[in-house]
Amino acid sequence: MNIGILGSGIVGQTLASKLVSLGHQVKIGSRSASNDKGAEWVKKHGANASQGTFSDTAKFGEIVFNCTKGEASLEALNRAGRTNLKSKILLDVSNPLDFSKGMPPSLLISNTDSLGEQIQQHFPDSKVVKTLNTISNSVMTNPRSLSDSHTIFLAGNDSDAKKKVKDLLITFGWQENEFIDLGDITASRGVEMFLPLWVRLMGVLKTGAFNFKIVKQL
Amino acid sequence: MNIGILGSGIVGQTLASKLVSLGHQVKIGSRSASNDKGAEWVKKHGANASQGTFSDTAKFGEIVFNCTKGEASLEALNRAGRTNLKSKILLDVSNPLDFSKGMPPSLLISNTDSLGEQIQQHFPDSKVVKTLNTISNSVMTNPRSLSDSHTIFLAGNDSDAKKKVKDLLITFGWQENEFIDLGDITASRGVEMFLPLWVRLMGVLKTGAFNFKIVKQL
Repeated sequence: MNIGILGSGIVGQTLASKLVSLGHQVKIGSRSASNDKGAEWVKKHGANASQGTFSDTAKFGEIVFNCTKGEASLEALNRAGRTNLKSKILLDVSNPLDFSKGMPPSLLISNTDSLGEQIQQHFPDSKVVKTLNTISNSVMTNPRSLSDSHTIFLAGNDSDAKKKVKDLLITFGWQENEFIDLGDITASRGVEMFLPLWVRLMGVLKTGAFNFKIVKQL
Repeated sequence: MNIGILGSGIVGQTLASKLVSLGHQVKIGSRSASNDKGAEWVKKHGANASQGTFSDTAKFGEIVFNCTKGEASLEALNRAGRTNLKSKILLDVSNPLDFSKGMPPSLLISNTDSLGEQIQQHFPDSKVVKTLNTISNSVMTNPRSLSDSHTIFLAGNDSDAKKKVKDLLITFGWQENEFIDLGDITASRGVEMFLPLWVRLMGVLKTGAFNFKIVKQL
């Protein structure tokens, strides 16, 4: 499948590399078509890897991942273009973190709104699926690296889009029973507001390589 | 030990009952010394159970639990009285949930502040320990009812107070390795902002009897 990855940071690169390793054609997108980080990534990953502008990348992808920084996501998606994203699954991995006042970050949007919802509202013809934003990139792409089963959340208005995202993530090693569908895109509030606890835990555990497992009654 | 429970709702009653069952003397506190819910609870729990005003209860307890609704916690604690709470552990179980616009609730305080921090700030001579607020009352008092080990958070500025709270909760059935000390009281932000996800999960799982387990690397 042709997959577009918006954002050439560590999360975008890690997801892009995983997708190439699974045989997909992957374009990584930045503001500039000749972005250095993107060029380096392409060089490492051969014929199935390419780079381009946000717009090129959105046009290329049958599925498009938003791996841009939360503070810049709406602008990046505007550059990607509504027409290029039309009718497509837009897998939103971003978090609206504000690092401007140092650590720990606060959230730029929270409580009665979320970035996931804002993206869906600005791109009503795309199928936004919020997922993976509560998990560090090493665990996203290598879920079996943890010592037990653990939980991945999905939120979005389109059930078929969530099913397709789930099927794609299962090829990463996620297991069917690890997914929890939280319902429509308003559930982005919960998963984004989880980040302050996640960041705090990363500090205490001294690693981002952890996740939560939901434990129910005996 | 003499323990004061501020708040005669379901969380306060469940904790109070557990503490009585463990042999403690427990006073449950409300605005009024003759609150109906409190009176019913006392009737059921015999000689070690009593009720009183918030002030009576704070005076009585060597440890005091805040189980009042988040929106009313500061007022209830003001009624409890700074002198009565002086030098004591104030175990804060509350969440600043706003149900005024229906379900799901939003938070009255969040992101760059938290109720736990506000309580510590208003009662600087008390040792606020934020804990249990991410867990339903049945799981708080019966942690072994779940099918696997799971995680309980502690936050607060006083290490000795956190140690004492942990020791008390271990008598409920919590295990030493299930506690994660998130550091100072500012970690209340993370555990309070976790509530929107918790509420969403309760809806999806159709029960509040669940918790998270942190899963680390192999």
